[in-house]
Amino acid sequence: MSLRICEIFGPTIQGEGVLIGEPTVFVRTGGCDYRCSWCDSLHAVDSAYRHDWEVMTPTEVWDEIVHLSDHRPLTVSLSGGNPAIQNLAPVIEMGQAAGYRFACETQGSIPAAWFGRLDTLVLSPKPPSSGERVVWERFEDCLKAAGPHTQVVMKIVVFDEDDFAFARATAASYPDLPLYLQPGNREVDPATPVNLDVAAKRLEWLVQQTLAAKWFRPRVLPQLHVMIWGNKRGV
Amino acid sequence: MSLRICEIFGPTIQGEGVLIGEPTVFVRTGGCDYRCSWCDSLHAVDSAYRHDWEVMTPTEVWDEIVHLSDHRPLTVSLSGGNPAIQNLAPVIEMGQAAGYRFACETQGSIPAAWFGRLDTLVLSPKPPSSGERVVWERFEDCLKAAGPHTQVVMKIVVFDEDDFAFARATAASYPDLPLYLQPGNREVDPATPVNLDVAAKRLEWLVQQTLAAKWFRPRVLPQLHVMIWGNKRGV
Repeated sequence: MSLRICEIFGPTIQGEGVLIGEPTVFVRTGGCDYRCSWCDSLHAVDSAYRHDWEVMTPTEVWDEIVHLSDHRPLTVSLSGGNPAIQNLAPVIEMGQAAGYRFACETQGSIPAAWFGRLDTLVLSPKPPSSGERVVWERFEDCLKAAGPHTQVVMKIVVFDEDDFAFARATAASYPDLPLYLQPGNREVDPATPVNLDVAAKRLEWLVQQTLAAKWFRPRVLPQLHVMIWGNKRGV
Repeated sequence: MSLRICEIFGPTIQGEGVLIGEPTVFVRTGGCDYRCSWCDSLHAVDSAYRHDWEVMTPTEVWDEIVHLSDHRPLTVSLSGGNPAIQNLAPVIEMGQAAGYRFACETQGSIPAAWFGRLDTLVLSPKPPSSGERVVWERFEDCLKAAGPHTQVVMKIVVFDEDDFAFARATAASYPDLPLYLQPGNREVDPATPVNLDVAAKRLEWLVQQTLAAKWFRPRVLPQLHVMIWGNKRGV
């Protein structure tokens, strides 16, 4: 069995969501069933990049995680693209046996059988600005696949007021899922330096929207990695 | 019974530590047994400000929390100064009966009987750069006061390499406490705009220190409120 891997990098810190600040090795798989208008990882999504994706066995992926982390257990984030396309169960199994923890970031469009083995599953239903549409039956299937032992949280990116309305409606449908909101980032070119004042303003806007609505449930968080490293890859 | 209160403000988001991003009303009490060299809340610490502190009953404090949050339950952060100096039990009791959650931020120098009623206790032992010295017997007493039902986490501010060594040693003494590191901020004048590039560089430095040491236990987080609002008060 082989996996298509876009990149494996770290340790760095997780920049967003429930594990924000956590030392993490990222495994970014190649291939996605979505193509969001503002995708910040097109190199893992657009099949034009597929010749840059390495074909690796699960053992080769695991060996690289061990190498990068120098054999010291930490959190591994499976991201993409959509990692749910591929069978990452053997990587998770080898890692957990060695004390590593596994998180996965996915839009919730494809339920992988291995979601139930994860420590943390982050489901990110894509808001209207993405140009994609959530199929809620599949999202439900993802929740079922996670089962009772995996921590499941929801993360929603908010670019505008329509997205904010989507976040509110989605949150109402899933009252029991911990919820994380983050402002969208349209400046995704790795070569263009990020304007931190603009990034801070976007966060402030989302905080104000949330508090003005007297909506005290979600946590509102930035993308720390963008604040530290801009859109540079591999950090 | 009366409480000395420096300010009550919010809802805003918690800017740091385990509850980062969480909509929160802050109750900042007046008075402190420490005086850290880089204190960012001298208006709640220095007794020169004591005439600005309001004397309020617990009911008056609770009424203000309810007013600010418009009766909608959220997280209340008890901070200071050192909130452990005063008896906040009646406020916590009224709030929890109405579904509010309570967190407290303290250096861990004074064990308050009400720590065990909190949802979350954040203990921040002060590193060498503060000019203060931790009395570990008191810190232990704080852990005991928290008891088995309160989530206890440790947060350490790191200004320099000595502070980093302190964080590592302290972490080793308390292997079971979740640990949050944050870079120090010497620009605490409310009138001076914060330079976000400098703030991002401080965070990057601390991330690099932590990862270079192959130390994968702590989460490394910035002060979000400083990134959004600078050192402005009441946000």
